[in-house]
Amino acid sequence: MNHVPVAIIGAGPAGLTLAHLLHLQGVESIVFESRTRKDVEETVRAGILEQGTLNLMRETGVGARMEAEADHDEAIDISINNERTRIPLTELTGHKVAIYPQHEYLKDFIAKRIEDGGELLFTTTVDSVENYEGDLAKVTYTEADGSSTTITADYVIAADGSNSPYRKLITEDGGVRARHEYPYAWFGILVEAPKTQKELIYATHPEGFALISTRTDEIQRYYLQCNPDDTPDMWSDDRIWEQLHLRADSPGITVSEGRIFDKAVLRFRSAVTEPMQKGRLFLAGDAAHTVPPTGAKGLNLAVADVAVLAPALVRALKKKDTGLLDSYTSLAVPRIWKAQHFSYWMSSMLHAVPGEDHFATQRRFAELRSVLESQSGQRYLAEQYVGRDLPRFEV
Amino acid sequence: MNHVPVAIIGAGPAGLTLAHLLHLQGVESIVFESRTRKDVEETVRAGILEQGTLNLMRETGVGARMEAEADHDEAIDISINNERTRIPLTELTGHKVAIYPQHEYLKDFIAKRIEDGGELLFTTTVDSVENYEGDLAKVTYTEADGSSTTITADYVIAADGSNSPYRKLITEDGGVRARHEYPYAWFGILVEAPKTQKELIYATHPEGFALISTRTDEIQRYYLQCNPDDTPDMWSDDRIWEQLHLRADSPGITVSEGRIFDKAVLRFRSAVTEPMQKGRLFLAGDAAHTVPPTGAKGLNLAVADVAVLAPALVRALKKKDTGLLDSYTSLAVPRIWKAQHFSYWMSSMLHAVPGEDHFATQRRFAELRSVLESQSGQRYLAEQYVGRDLPRFEV
Repeated sequence: MNHVPVAIIGAGPAGLTLAHLLHLQGVESIVFESRTRKDVEETVRAGILEQGTLNLMRETGVGARMEAEADHDEAIDISINNERTRIPLTELTGHKVAIYPQHEYLKDFIAKRIEDGGELLFTTTVDSVENYEGDLAKVTYTEADGSSTTITADYVIAADGSNSPYRKLITEDGGVRARHEYPYAWFGILVEAPKTQKELIYATHPEGFALISTRTDEIQRYYLQCNPDDTPDMWSDDRIWEQLHLRADSPGITVSEGRIFDKAVLRFRSAVTEPMQKGRLFLAGDAAHTVPPTGAKGLNLAVADVAVLAPALVRALKKKDTGLLDSYTSLAVPRIWKAQHFSYWMSSMLHAVPGEDHFATQRRFAELRSVLESQSGQRYLAEQYVGRDLPRFEV
Repeated sequence: MNHVPVAIIGAGPAGLTLAHLLHLQGVESIVFESRTRKDVEETVRAGILEQGTLNLMRETGVGARMEAEADHDEAIDISINNERTRIPLTELTGHKVAIYPQHEYLKDFIAKRIEDGGELLFTTTVDSVENYEGDLAKVTYTEADGSSTTITADYVIAADGSNSPYRKLITEDGGVRARHEYPYAWFGILVEAPKTQKELIYATHPEGFALISTRTDEIQRYYLQCNPDDTPDMWSDDRIWEQLHLRADSPGITVSEGRIFDKAVLRFRSAVTEPMQKGRLFLAGDAAHTVPPTGAKGLNLAVADVAVLAPALVRALKKKDTGLLDSYTSLAVPRIWKAQHFSYWMSSMLHAVPGEDHFATQRRFAELRSVLESQSGQRYLAEQYVGRDLPRFEV
């Protein structure tokens, strides 16, 4: 039976970043991905990269295209009832963020994995993970041609997203899955239009939230707060433009229009799994935790998980020191809860809860104004927006 | 019929401060108070004076006893699960707060009013306010001896607390009363004991909130989160001490014990009335708005109201310019909503909502830790704790 030190299920941000970081330390892995490479690379996903994620890309040789193509933003705007305030992220924190879609991030890491000769099996389904509480885990998988293989692995990482079937091996055996549902969702569109402005605009209005985001010079990404059970047919183009202008226009800024070529509803959910490990099985990224999109923390949290997990696995495999690996959950979880808080806080401040009373609306607006009128309030928000430094451990 | 420029109903912080500020500008008033002077001066109420309130007392000649007797605090402690973090208010903001009970504040303003020869009628009930939308308002009142008098007034200020009957003259005629109820209350005790420490300790714990406050070197004021319908007989001394130690002790700090001589339940409510004026009738302080005790903003908001109202009345009476008076509500309300937010925020972070789920608890703690680990987070909180500058208008 073949053996691999680290078996990674899922070629998302957590899995691909982990495989790359392990490779840099001379640790071999296999990444299993059930979808095709084309599907992974072409499923359009938003992405705002924190300063820590940017630095990791740069420092590990995967940052060249991101540097050249991403928008590197030094500010965001927050608009309350059509009045904009600029939060100068870089002036307040010394850091920038990059608007770089998640699928572009994945393309770069896939290309790098292939260039480095890493094993990356697309269209390959993992059928079972066994014996992860024993000396060696066993992973059975089926490739596109229908052939089934079982290998052994020192460690198995479930990085297969929010529907990971491996999470239940932990949650159904003493683990905790904390959840929160939100009474709103986002209606997202892709549109052929010039940028409304370079920086993102987070807008709140009695009719609800809107986010004016960017993709390229020709393609823009806009979001409107909607009900969680809305369907795309409920949002005609006319209704979309009316609501975008109503909620997000402000003096000097008119949301730029164009042909809408994609409409989709994004759910809002928070979830945290504890512990994130059992024996030789570890959860990373969305398999362990989900954040709502407002804080743009999903990809960055996945990267933060593997910034702990990679050196922990290297120490365990190369130095037979499992101390860091044993502490993975306790090292990762405080950051996850802070990111959950930030996502919840941004969501709660900016969204009108359907049917909220006068007190709730006015309190929300007073909170936003308290943050925006104070330099320390702005900096407190900006620090969390650009993100905390990634954990660093010598290996 | 006798006439007074300003009739003030209620000898609380709003009414007495207003009468004093008007006197300094040469405007005469009468203050009507239904209770006895002894009752007003001896009803024990907590008080934390913001920097703006302190400065007003100093600048207007009412600050001498406060300067000498109050604790002037440069910090507060926040304790999460028995681990304390110090928030250095003065280092972060340049300002201090004073721990000075509300009834001591009232004593100082009553003494000053009497020294200045002001009309201050205790044990006097206002029976009606009429014609406040006409040229001159009419106020009818009954004194302790049963005699009834009607006078005219240019302006009538209802500063008679949260149960003000005059508020409904506004709310039942197009005004809005926004409210919020909280699922918890405070069980407050007075105890003969030395100070636990000079600065206040705000403690949160899975069992609930506790506040270790001070009164004098010999008398302390402690609070425990309780259910809103708890009664004093449900809290034995043993239960009180057990819960205070459980929630608020921390390394180096043990809550000091002694004879408990007062037990009371404090309700948590938020309310904001808009507008705060109609014709010649104006609301100030708790008559217009109520805040929960966590932020200690009640007295300070009353003072902020009259910091607008006093110069507005002076301009109207002495210069026949009602511009500022017409803008009273719109000038006062943004600060009131920010104070509501601060009180709500402090309350929400520090209290365990009965039955809250794992997500809610962990998110709260992550929020507290996000604030405490960041200097800008601490400063954002400290700025609001020490309070914004009072509005200042030339008269």
